[in-house]
Amino acid sequence: MDISRLGRQIEFLAEIDSLKRIVRQSLLMDGSRQENSAEHSWHLAVLAMVLAEHSRAPVNILRVLKMILVHDLVEIDAGDTYCYDEEGNRDKAAREKTAADRIFNLLPADQAEEFRALWEEFESARTPDALFAACLDRLQPLLNNFRSGGIMWQKHGIRKEQVFSRNGHMADGAPVLWDYAQKMIEDAIAKGWIAG
Amino acid sequence: MDISRLGRQIEFLAEIDSLKRIVRQSLLMDGSRQENSAEHSWHLAVLAMVLAEHSRAPVNILRVLKMILVHDLVEIDAGDTYCYDEEGNRDKAAREKTAADRIFNLLPADQAEEFRALWEEFESARTPDALFAACLDRLQPLLNNFRSGGIMWQKHGIRKEQVFSRNGHMADGAPVLWDYAQKMIEDAIAKGWIAG
Repeated sequence: MDISRLGRQIEFLAEIDSLKRIVRQSLLMDGSRQENSAEHSWHLAVLAMVLAEHSRAPVNILRVLKMILVHDLVEIDAGDTYCYDEEGNRDKAAREKTAADRIFNLLPADQAEEFRALWEEFESARTPDALFAACLDRLQPLLNNFRSGGIMWQKHGIRKEQVFSRNGHMADGAPVLWDYAQKMIEDAIAKGWIAG
Repeated sequence: MDISRLGRQIEFLAEIDSLKRIVRQSLLMDGSRQENSAEHSWHLAVLAMVLAEHSRAPVNILRVLKMILVHDLVEIDAGDTYCYDEEGNRDKAAREKTAADRIFNLLPADQAEEFRALWEEFESARTPDALFAACLDRLQPLLNNFRSGGIMWQKHGIRKEQVFSRNGHMADGAPVLWDYAQKMIEDAIAKGWIAG
């Protein structure tokens, strides 16, 4: 065994413990607190296992799971950028690229390359696997926001057109899930949780 | 699309949000708080991606990931049983079986069967995939306990022989990782974090 290889792997795995401290703008469904990016990533991965059959195109579920498990690691340095934060989203890509350069390179070179490629594919959202993963990454916060009573939408004064424009690309990943999400959004508008 | 099928899948995915509220007897590595079983499951899954090459026997990484992602779901009803809690471990299996009966059966029957089988395989720890997953499930809390300064070992007055007896089966999953863990445990004993 190459000790330094295992050593690098362990340092990477210790570093990513920090993802548990990156707080997102979604509440747990019981409203008790905001969720963090590590537990969000776990939740997304189980969504992928359960909902894969609804993908528009056939997916390689192993690649989808790997992509989901690493998709938020850059937030360790770049922070979670709220999807409706226009200012923060302007330099998000640059901040996350710098983060990726540091974090993935903690791994041995071959794994750094694999993880980086998975993250870039997720970000580009062009392959069937990435389109499906991105679709789940929209569905999960919609579910959590809806089931926790729309508190976060109201807190941030989110409007209907923002929600539709932000989430419309779900149809590229899984039309059935976008249909489901649209009904949920319409219901949230009817309840006054999202501004009409 | 079968609406009731998607409806069952979504109800399951909403139910498991509760795993984010199951608190474990490990701290985050920065010592700021105890970790929960959802973020623990995510961490384990990334451990599997990074450390698969160290498994004693070749593993099917997709099956390992799926097993890890669902391995703690029964804790939603049964709670997390601390590995050194002898009292709690006496009826753990029965409590978890009842939990599995309820939670997995929220899913459509075919998926309930798949998830249940993955969980049972993990629990039985006999196949190469399960042995490797179980090995990671020991390594991760050792890493978190060690890197957070051994607070939880000290708090519970854990003794050397408990740690060796609890974690020795790591060698069945990945001898290289058990070697690494043993060095960490010896170091923790030397520091006085684990009673010698």
